[in-house]
Amino acid sequence: MNNINSTAFNEITVRHENGVLYIHFNRPQKKNAMNLKLVEEVMQCFQHTEEITDLRAVVIAGSEGNFCSGGDISDMHLSSLSESEKEQAIWHFNRSFGHMITQVKHSPTPVIAVVQGAVLGGGFGLACVADIAIACETAFFSLPETGLGIIPAQIAPFVASRIGVDQTKRLALTGEKIDAQQALQLGLVHRVCPPSQLTQQLTSEIKRIKRCAPTANKNTKRLLLGLNETPLEQLLDNAADAFVNSLTCDEGVEGTKAFIQKRSPSWCE
Amino acid sequence: MNNINSTAFNEITVRHENGVLYIHFNRPQKKNAMNLKLVEEVMQCFQHTEEITDLRAVVIAGSEGNFCSGGDISDMHLSSLSESEKEQAIWHFNRSFGHMITQVKHSPTPVIAVVQGAVLGGGFGLACVADIAIACETAFFSLPETGLGIIPAQIAPFVASRIGVDQTKRLALTGEKIDAQQALQLGLVHRVCPPSQLTQQLTSEIKRIKRCAPTANKNTKRLLLGLNETPLEQLLDNAADAFVNSLTCDEGVEGTKAFIQKRSPSWCE
Amino acid sequence: MNNINSTAFNEITVRHENGVLYIHFNRPQKKNAMNLKLVEEVMQCFQHTEEITDLRAVVIAGSEGNFCSGGDISDMHLSSLSESEKEQAIWHFNRSFGHMITQVKHSPTPVIAVVQGAVLGGGFGLACVADIAIACETAFFSLPETGLGIIPAQIAPFVASRIGVDQTKRLALTGEKIDAQQALQLGLVHRVCPPSQLTQQLTSEIKRIKRCAPTANKNTKRLLLGLNETPLEQLLDNAADAFVNSLTCDEGVEGTKAFIQKRSPSWCE
Repeated sequence: MNNINSTAFNEITVRHENGVLYIHFNRPQKKNAMNLKLVEEVMQCFQHTEEITDLRAVVIAGSEGNFCSGGDISDMHLSSLSESEKEQAIWHFNRSFGHMITQVKHSPTPVIAVVQGAVLGGGFGLACVADIAIACETAFFSLPETGLGIIPAQIAPFVASRIGVDQTKRLALTGEKIDAQQALQLGLVHRVCPPSQLTQQLTSEIKRIKRCAPTANKNTKRLLLGLNETPLEQLLDNAADAFVNSLTCDEGVEGTKAFIQKRSPSWCE
Repeated sequence: MNNINSTAFNEITVRHENGVLYIHFNRPQKKNAMNLKLVEEVMQCFQHTEEITDLRAVVIAGSEGNFCSGGDISDMHLSSLSESEKEQAIWHFNRSFGHMITQVKHSPTPVIAVVQGAVLGGGFGLACVADIAIACETAFFSLPETGLGIIPAQIAPFVASRIGVDQTKRLALTGEKIDAQQALQLGLVHRVCPPSQLTQQLTSEIKRIKRCAPTANKNTKRLLLGLNETPLEQLLDNAADAFVNSLTCDEGVEGTKAFIQKRSPSWCE
Repeated sequence: MNNINSTAFNEITVRHENGVLYIHFNRPQKKNAMNLKLVEEVMQCFQHTEEITDLRAVVIAGSEGNFCSGGDISDMHLSSLSESEKEQAIWHFNRSFGHMITQVKHSPTPVIAVVQGAVLGGGFGLACVADIAIACETAFFSLPETGLGIIPAQIAPFVASRIGVDQTKRLALTGEKIDAQQALQLGLVHRVCPPSQLTQQLTSEIKRIKRCAPTANKNTKRLLLGLNETPLEQLLDNAADAFVNSLTCDEGVEGTKAFIQKRSPSWCE
């Protein structure tokens, strides 16, 4: 999978460079609305990220001024199908998106979303599962589903987990469009910058991630995503086990040694 | 219940107009503190909202410059009761408020609270269960219970669900009074405006809600309020079922058609 | 334990004055990094707070310009130990911190953290369990663990409970340093002020707490920390029981009487 650069994708473009995998949605004529193929290609990428040696971060971004305008139902070509085939196709498309967003959220490698222009519906949901979300000032966000007579089905739990049930509810029941500053205040994104500084901002975040130990980052992410699965006292017992492992493994030994010697640890570039 | 305009209420005033039910607390001499009768009348209103054809929103507001200053214990006339009757009366009054706030929170129709002046105790709690809360700049908020030697019993879970356990705890242990801007930052309210713009702000929010499909809004609200009741994978399976239904029902068909035809869907005014 | 002023501590200083227990970390040469002895001394203090008559608040602070720079692993003198002794010592040290932070969180008496300078790792965690956190403008906060190859094991659930899983995850995977204003926006702290106003700010918070009834505060804190342990309807039934008790006990009787008589209740100074 280190040869992912050469893999052929249709709906996304993928680049692996300096320990970072860059995934760009590539349906600009549709403001990068997601069809089933795009969803499957993103899943294919994430399935293989663990096999990539020295992968430190995954970047998800759009193209040509937009992040992603949601699900592209028009691409399903439903008109040729029978009623029950149609329902199955819709179910499969919707649920596939749910599998994809779950997979992105649980990616062991940190995920950075870089958003601009349209960040709607499923695109809004995707921004919510990135470990870091950087917004260009041009970004606007909304949950437009109810305005179309439909519901934000697969994204609801992921948006609520990011900005709370109540803000999610408000945005979903009104379809209100918010800007990047409002998204920052909701905790939906973590940085806002003008277009000219987007690359520099992304570079800073990648640099910060690279200063952290890869395995420690993976274990920390797993720990934080699993907090609600175990009663507190048991969780803290397990966490102490994991702490001992982290301190006595290669990374912990190198990290504390580097700290005492006032030098960068080996995993930093 | 379409004749709710003619129903006699004592402690509230009720108006049904253009698809919106307006409930005003009407005890201005007590800063709209809630007595048992008021609580029961609000419950009566919400019990019947489902029967009102084309109801799109419920607005809860105060009167004469205040939203609601909490529970009116002085109105219970406890002095004439025996010790055990007294305890039963207090229990019933307190628990009734809990039933009412639970009912408002789960109202299938979106609820907008418009708050000004005193927003205290139970009034604070009510603002926390509204889908949208608009605050006049004159509003001030506090949880004054512990300063009276009592506890914020029925509202605790609702306030915590809105602004988090930790901010709730801080406000309850100090009785601190916060203003509308601080309430905005805590996510307690979603808009702040001067008195002169309150009506206009409310009109905008109602307009936004009316652009969303009624049934889609009901289903979205139910989905979001039930997120913690089902394990994630099962929840997403169910959500896909609900998505298929929403897309193939009248609203979904009309909504997507209107979107393609670049016109307003039929449920918009 | 009213004689706590005379108790000998090595790693902290303790003062009991006007109903407030002040605990200062006293390892300034290490930026108040916590060793096992410090952790044990803090636990010893909190074990005895319930025995102190008329205790209204506990204040935790650092010394000489810093709050706390985390755990002091260098103080464990691990080099002289066998591999398995070393692992046991690390486990015990890590887990002890977890016991301490749990104890501070559940202190029946309100806890105020006053932070400045370094607020790192375990120090960051401690700030997150205080009922009120006041930050000096000089304060800076980070979760530096992954930069050392280790994980924020014991503090993860406490930080996540304060600022949410997602902001915790971001700070832990990047080690980013944030300032007091950013900490305020995350809800990590509740006040920010220049060094010259720190004492005055602390005095105001203590005054607010003292205006609230001691037992009502204890019961309110217990109620809020236990919200997730009981299904909602049962919780509200129990809360109504507790409300009746609070209103009919000495504090409730005195508090409501004082309110009607427009005077301060007896528990106020």
